[in-house]
Amino acid sequence: MSLNPKRTVAELKELRALTADENGAQRVAWTDMWLKARAWFASKIKELPVEHHFDAAGNNWITLPGASEKALILGGHLDSVPNGGWLDGALDITVGLEILRRINTEYSGRPPVTIRIVDWADEEGARFGRSLLGSSAFAGTHSIEADRGRTDRDGVKLEDALRRCGVEISKFPDATKEQKNAAAYLELHIEQGPVLERMELPLGVVLGTKGVERHIINFHGQEAHSGSTPMNTRKDALAAAAKLALEIRTIAKKHEDAVCTMGSVKTYPGIVTAVVGRCEVTLDQRDLNAEILAQMYREAQEASRQFAAEENCTVDWSRLWSIEPVPFHPHLLDLCDQAIRETAGTSHRMPSGPLHDAAEVSRAGIPTVMMFVQSLKGISHNKIEDTREEHLEMSVAALDRLASKTMAWIQKQP
Amino acid sequence: MSLNPKRTVAELKELRALTADENGAQRVAWTDMWLKARAWFASKIKELPVEHHFDAAGNNWITLPGASEKALILGGHLDSVPNGGWLDGALDITVGLEILRRINTEYSGRPPVTIRIVDWADEEGARFGRSLLGSSAFAGTHSIEADRGRTDRDGVKLEDALRRCGVEISKFPDATKEQKNAAAYLELHIEQGPVLERMELPLGVVLGTKGVERHIINFHGQEAHSGSTPMNTRKDALAAAAKLALEIRTIAKKHEDAVCTMGSVKTYPGIVTAVVGRCEVTLDQRDLNAEILAQMYREAQEASRQFAAEENCTVDWSRLWSIEPVPFHPHLLDLCDQAIRETAGTSHRMPSGPLHDAAEVSRAGIPTVMMFVQSLKGISHNKIEDTREEHLEMSVAALDRLASKTMAWIQKQP
Repeated sequence: MSLNPKRTVAELKELRALTADENGAQRVAWTDMWLKARAWFASKIKELPVEHHFDAAGNNWITLPGASEKALILGGHLDSVPNGGWLDGALDITVGLEILRRINTEYSGRPPVTIRIVDWADEEGARFGRSLLGSSAFAGTHSIEADRGRTDRDGVKLEDALRRCGVEISKFPDATKEQKNAAAYLELHIEQGPVLERMELPLGVVLGTKGVERHIINFHGQEAHSGSTPMNTRKDALAAAAKLALEIRTIAKKHEDAVCTMGSVKTYPGIVTAVVGRCEVTLDQRDLNAEILAQMYREAQEASRQFAAEENCTVDWSRLWSIEPVPFHPHLLDLCDQAIRETAGTSHRMPSGPLHDAAEVSRAGIPTVMMFVQSLKGISHNKIEDTREEHLEMSVAALDRLASKTMAWIQKQP
Repeated sequence: MSLNPKRTVAELKELRALTADENGAQRVAWTDMWLKARAWFASKIKELPVEHHFDAAGNNWITLPGASEKALILGGHLDSVPNGGWLDGALDITVGLEILRRINTEYSGRPPVTIRIVDWADEEGARFGRSLLGSSAFAGTHSIEADRGRTDRDGVKLEDALRRCGVEISKFPDATKEQKNAAAYLELHIEQGPVLERMELPLGVVLGTKGVERHIINFHGQEAHSGSTPMNTRKDALAAAAKLALEIRTIAKKHEDAVCTMGSVKTYPGIVTAVVGRCEVTLDQRDLNAEILAQMYREAQEASRQFAAEENCTVDWSRLWSIEPVPFHPHLLDLCDQAIRETAGTSHRMPSGPLHDAAEVSRAGIPTVMMFVQSLKGISHNKIEDTREEHLEMSVAALDRLASKTMAWIQKQP
C-alpha cells in the first residue's frame, strides 16, 4: 500500500465533522472536544504496530521502532482555537499518520530508523493564554511553575484542567526524556499568511520562526478641552502615537521580511470633547534575523522619543514578551527545498511570522525544519480557513519525500 | 453702598464650602446639592426688593423692576459637573448679584431699566447628557420632547428627575414667555482655556461661540495576523486613521482660532498580534466662522477618503452632533471692549470654544455678549479649576461697567 494523499484529506474532513460546529473547529486543549479528537486519532493507529503513550506534559507519542533507535519525528497539534479552522495543526498530524503508514508498509513494520509522531498538547494556548505549552515542556525551555496559576475565563485553574486530563503539572520536567534519540523533526503547517498564494506556489520551505519584540508604549500629554485649547498649546498624546503608527512601517520596510504592527490604541480620557492626555499603544516587531530585530526595536524607541518631544509629551515603554529568532537546520532546509521542487517544480524559502512547536524543538538542539502549504486569503484561526485540496495532497507527497530524504540523512550520521 | 468685588469672592468661597467635597463641586442639576445651592442663592436676595420665580423649565428669574420694562439680563448657572470647579457658572451668578446690589443702591430700588438675573437650569447636562437645557427651552430652539426619555446612569428618567424639582417637561415651551422685554443679555464666565493666561491678560471680549461639527469616522481594512502578513499586503485601518489624526492639525492651523480634535481612537480586534481591521475615531471641529467650519469639515472628509484609498481601506462618516456658530452683538462687543479697557487697560477679542447659555439667548434674537476672565492653566471641570482673586475682582468691576454702558444703550433704543 503506497502513500494515499486523498485519504489524508478524507480524514481531515472526518475530524472536522466530529469536532467542529457551525462556528468552526472547537478542539480547544484540555476540553472534552479535544479529548474526543485525540480518541479519534487513537482509533486511526490501532491497526499499526506502534507503541503509544502520553508524556509528562500530555504530549501524545506514537512510535514505530526502527532498526536504529535514532528517531525521525513528525509533529503537529490536534488542538485548535475556539471557532478555529479545520487544518491548523490537524493537517500536520494526519499527514504524519499517512507517512507512517507508507513507511510501515514499505519496510514491513521495521524501518531503518525509528519513526515517531507527536501530537503536542496545547499549542494554541487558547484557553489559558500560554501557547506552545507541551513542546516547551519537551524542550525544557520554560519553567511551567510560572504558568500553573493561570486561569481560564471561568476561573478554572490551568493546573486543575490538566489534572482532569491526567496530567500533573509538577511532573512537566519529565517530558524532556522524550528528546532521547531524537535525530530530526519535521512539521508541515498551513502558511496562515498570503505569501504563497500571491506567488501562486503551493509549498514553501520555512527558514525558521521570527524573533518577536512585543511592547506596550504609553505617550503622556495633557488632557485639555477640545473647544478652548488652541492647536499650538496642546500636548496631544495621540499625535505622537499617530506618528509612531506610521513610522514603524518605514522601519519594517527597510528589511525584506520584517514586520512591525501597532495592533491596539487606547485613548484617555477617550471622549470626543477632550484632547488625548494619554495614549497607550502596542507594538509587535518580528524578524528572523536577531540583529535586524534589535535594530528595529532601537529605531522604534528612538522614533517614539523624538515624536514625544515634538508634541511636548513624554513616553515610556514596557516589554510584554520577547523571543529570539529560531533559524531551522541548514541541511534540512536544503532537503525540504529538494522535496518541494520534486513535488511542485518550484520552491520558495520564507520565514514564519507565527510561532510553532518546531521552534521549541529546534531550541532543544534537534535538527528541525518546517514546510508551509498555501493558505487561501492568508486566513487562519477562523472557520473560513482553507487550502485547495490539490495543494493539501501535494503537501502530503512533499512531506513524505522530505521524510525519506531525512531518514537517509539520519542513517548517514555517525 | 458701592460695588464690593471682594464680597463676590467671599460669597464664592461660601458656596464652595457648602456644595463641594474633597473631589470638587457637586452641584449637579436636579440633585439635592443643586437645590441646596439655589436655596443659598435665595437667601442672598431676601433683603433686595426683587420679584423671584422659576419659569416652566426651572430657570430661576430674579427681577428688579425699573422705570422701563425693557430688561437687562445678567445670566449664569449654579449647576456644575460632578467633581467640578468653584467658578464655572457660579461666578456669573454671584457677580450678577453684586451688580444688582450696586444698581439697586444707586437708583434707590428704581433703576431706569429693569434688571434681571437668570440662573439657567442644567447648563452642564452632566447627569442626562443634554447641555443648555434651560436656556434652550427659553430660546425655544429645541424640542424637549426629543430628550424627555433620557435617563441617568442609575436609570432615572429626565422627566422624573425634573418633576421631583417641580418642573413639568410638557410645560417647557412656556419658558419662552421670559423673552418678553429682554433688551440685552450679559454673561461673565471663566475662559476654561489658556489664551488669556498666555497673553497675561485678565479679561477678554467673547466674539461668539464657535460652531461645532462632531463626527464618528470608521476606517475599514482587513484584520490580519501580525506575524504572517507582509507589510505590503496589509489593509491597515489604523494607518489611515493615524494619517487623519495628523492631517486634521494641518487643516485647523490654516485658520487663526480654528480647532480640530481627535479625542477617541478604538481599534478592532485591538490585540497586539493583529493588524487593525477596523478603526473608529471621533472628530470635533470648531470655528466661529461658518464658512471656515464647512471648509474644515469638507477637507477632513476628503483627506479621510484619500488616506483610506492609500491604505486599501474604506471609510464612512456619521454625524454625532453639530451646531452653527453664534456671533455676539456687534455693538455690545464694542461696549464690552470699552469696559475691559477701562478696568484692565488692555482687552482682547476671542471666540469661545465651549458652548454657553449665551449662545441660546443670542439665537433667540436678544442682543448678547460674554466676557471672559482668565483661567489658571486653562483647566476647568476639575477641582483644581482656579482664577487669581485679583482677576475675579477685576471681572466684577468690568462687568459692572459693561452693565452700566448697556443700560444706557437700552435707554437710547427706540
